[in-house]
Amino acid sequence: MSTPKILILGAGYGGVSTAVGLQNKLNHNEADITLVSKHDYHYLTTWLHEPAAGTMPAHRAKIYLDEIIDQKKVNVVKGTVQLINSADQTVALEDGSVLSYDYLIVGLGSDPETFGIEGLKENAFSIRSINSVYKIKEHIDYMFASFKNDPDRLDYLTFVIGGAGFTGIEFLGELVNRVPELCREFDVDPSLVQIYSIEAAPSALPGFDTDLVEYAMNMLESKGIQFKINTPIKQCTADGVILATGEEIKSKTVVWTGGVRGSSVVEKSGFEVMRGRVKVDEYMRAPGHDNVFIIGDCALIFNDEGRPYPPTAQISIQEAENVVRNLKAFIRGEKLTLVPFVPALQGTLASLGKGEGMGIVMNKKKMFGLSAAIMKKGGDARYLMKIGGLGLVLKKIRL
Amino acid sequence: MSTPKILILGAGYGGVSTAVGLQNKLNHNEADITLVSKHDYHYLTTWLHEPAAGTMPAHRAKIYLDEIIDQKKVNVVKGTVQLINSADQTVALEDGSVLSYDYLIVGLGSDPETFGIEGLKENAFSIRSINSVYKIKEHIDYMFASFKNDPDRLDYLTFVIGGAGFTGIEFLGELVNRVPELCREFDVDPSLVQIYSIEAAPSALPGFDTDLVEYAMNMLESKGIQFKINTPIKQCTADGVILATGEEIKSKTVVWTGGVRGSSVVEKSGFEVMRGRVKVDEYMRAPGHDNVFIIGDCALIFNDEGRPYPPTAQISIQEAENVVRNLKAFIRGEKLTLVPFVPALQGTLASLGKGEGMGIVMNKKKMFGLSAAIMKKGGDARYLMKIGGLGLVLKKIRL
Repeated sequence: MSTPKILILGAGYGGVSTAVGLQNKLNHNEADITLVSKHDYHYLTTWLHEPAAGTMPAHRAKIYLDEIIDQKKVNVVKGTVQLINSADQTVALEDGSVLSYDYLIVGLGSDPETFGIEGLKENAFSIRSINSVYKIKEHIDYMFASFKNDPDRLDYLTFVIGGAGFTGIEFLGELVNRVPELCREFDVDPSLVQIYSIEAAPSALPGFDTDLVEYAMNMLESKGIQFKINTPIKQCTADGVILATGEEIKSKTVVWTGGVRGSSVVEKSGFEVMRGRVKVDEYMRAPGHDNVFIIGDCALIFNDEGRPYPPTAQISIQEAENVVRNLKAFIRGEKLTLVPFVPALQGTLASLGKGEGMGIVMNKKKMFGLSAAIMKKGGDARYLMKIGGLGLVLKKIRL
Repeated sequence: MSTPKILILGAGYGGVSTAVGLQNKLNHNEADITLVSKHDYHYLTTWLHEPAAGTMPAHRAKIYLDEIIDQKKVNVVKGTVQLINSADQTVALEDGSVLSYDYLIVGLGSDPETFGIEGLKENAFSIRSINSVYKIKEHIDYMFASFKNDPDRLDYLTFVIGGAGFTGIEFLGELVNRVPELCREFDVDPSLVQIYSIEAAPSALPGFDTDLVEYAMNMLESKGIQFKINTPIKQCTADGVILATGEEIKSKTVVWTGGVRGSSVVEKSGFEVMRGRVKVDEYMRAPGHDNVFIIGDCALIFNDEGRPYPPTAQISIQEAENVVRNLKAFIRGEKLTLVPFVPALQGTLASLGKGEGMGIVMNKKKMFGLSAAIMKKGGDARYLMKIGGLGLVLKKIRL
C-alpha cells in the first residue's frame, strides 16, 4: 500500500493547525503531507485590526511558515488554489500546477460578504490580509497628509466603519487610540476627525450579551465614535456612503467589516454551499466526500439550538485538532476511534484598544477592561505556544 | 514723530532672519515690527527633501515661531498675503484683514515653475512646504502598500523625479536610502523599484562643477537611479510622464523639482517681475519704492558677469542681514552708513543621503563624501545658532 497523500489548502488558523498537528502526531513516512499557501507566511487574522489602524507593525501579525512547519515532514507549496476537482482527487493552482490527494483538508478562509450593497466591493477597504491592512494603514496616514494640503476637505478626516460586529468594534478600539497620535503628528485639530460606526442590525455586536455591548459602545462613544445602529448602508461610492435613511456621509475611507462568506473556490468547485460554507458531517467532511474535510470559514456547523456557529479562529483551531485526530485513525485503519467534532467554546473576548477589552469566558462569566484584554492575550499566547513554542510566544506577544 | 511700522511678509529664511535681526538690533519702541506668516512655524526648506523621502520626521524641519521670535518685540500675525497695495502702504490678507506699513520687507518665497509643461501642476507633487512633504512621504508609503495588493501594477513602484537640480539630486539621495527600508517593511523585491531622474538641461546640476556632477551621478547611479539627461518632459498625466522623445514612463508618483519662480503675489501687486522676481536696487528695494525691500526667492540680483544668482537660503539670509542693517540706518536717519548688498558666497554643498555629499566651499575647494555632508550640517548649525541659539542647534541637528 502506498503512502497516503494529505493535501491541506490554506495556511490560516485551520490549515496551519492541521499541518502542525499532523507533523507532531504522525510518524515519519506515515503520510505524504503538503500545505498550499498563498504566502510564505501564516498570519494572525484576529490581530489585523491593530496594524490596520497603525497601532501595531504588520510584521508582528506575520509568522513565516518555515518558523512553524518542519519542511522535512510537510511540503510547503506557495500558490493560489483555483479549483478542487473531487472526482479526480486533484487541486488546480492558478500557476497551472495540479496536486493530487488521498485526503484533502480545505481551509481556504473567507471572502468579504457585501450583501449586495452597491459599490462596496469597489470602494471600501476590508481587513482581510496583511497586504490589505498595509493599505488601510497607509491610506489613513495619507488622508491626514492630504488634509493638511486641502484644509476644506473634511471628508479626508471622516472615517466610516461599516459593520459593528467583532472586527468592526475591535478596529474602532484601535482607531480611537491611533487618531490622537495622527493629530499630533500632522498637527490636525482632533475635533475635525469624525469616525462613524454603521450597523444594519438592531444592535452592535449582534447576539452578544447586552451588558458587554453597552460597555463597548459607551467606551467607544466616550472616545468620540458616532454609532448609527439599525441603519443599513444603501450604497458606497468613491465619495462616501449613502445610508438607507437617505443621509450621505462624505468620506474617503470606508472600511467594511460587515461579514464574511466562505471562499468562492469551494462553490466554484461544485460543493453545495450556503454563503460559501459547506454543511459538514460530524467528522467535518463534505457530504458525499469521505476524504474531503472542510474547516474554518468554509465550514458550516450548528449548535444544539440549530443556529450556525460563527466562524472564529477558536473554532477553526478546534476543528483542525479534530481532523488531525481522525485522519490519524483513518490512515491507521482505526475507525473505531473516530471522534465527532464538538466545539468547546472557551469564551469570546474582544479587544477595545490598548489595555481595554470585554467578553465572556468559561461559565459565561463576563469580563471587562484590562483583565479582559490580558485574558485575550492569554488565548493568543496559547495558540502561538501550540504552533511555534515558547520562542514564538515571546516574539509576538506584547502586553 | 510716530514709531515707524515695519511689516515683514513671510517667515522663510529671509523673513525670519529679518525679524530676528530687527528684534536684536533695534531698541525697544524704536519700531513697531510685525511678521506675517502662513503658519505658526518657520521651516527649513533646504531640509525638506529628507521628510519628503521619509528619512527624517517632518517636525524636525519645523521651528515654531514662538521659539525664535520675542513676541514682546515682534507681533506675529498668522495669515496668507493676498495683495500688496504700495500706493496706500497696506497689505491685504486672505482673511480680509489689512495691515499698514512704513517699511515693507517682502519674503514671500516661491511657487513651482512648471515651464508650461502640460499637466504638471495638476499631477505632480512638489517639495515646497511641511504639508507638501507630509503628502509625498505618505503617498510613497501608500504606493508600496498598494503594490502588495496589486502586484501587476509596477507603476506603483516607479518614481519619476522631474528636474536634476539641487533639490532633485538631494531628494534622490534620500530616496535611494529610503527605498530599501520600504522594501523590507512591505516585503517587496527591490529590483522591481524604478527611480528616474529626468532633466531637460544638457547636464544634471546645471552650472555646477563637472567633477562634482559626475561624483553625484555615479554615486546615485550605483544605487540604482536611472538618469535621463537632456530629456525634456512633454506632458505629465495621472498615469505618468511622456517625454519629448515620445517615451512614456508609467508612474503614480511624479515629483517636480525643476525650478521655482517668485511668489505670484508680487506680480499681482503690480511690481515688474521676471519669472516672478523683482530686479532690486543695491539696497534690495523694488525700483521706485524706497520703502519696499524684496528678499529671497522674489528678488533678482546679478553677479559681475551679469548672470542672476540662484535663489538660495544662503543668499536670502545675507540679504536679510543687509536689510536689517540698512533699515536701522533709515529709521535712525543715518543714511551715510547705508551699505549696498554684496553676496558673500560661502560655497554650495549638496547632501546625497546619510553621510554623503559633495560641493564647493570657500576658495573653490571641492569636497566629497562624509566631509561634505558634515560641512553642510555645519552651515545649517550656524543658521540655527543665529536664529535660535545653541538650544535650537542641539534640538535640530543630527549627524
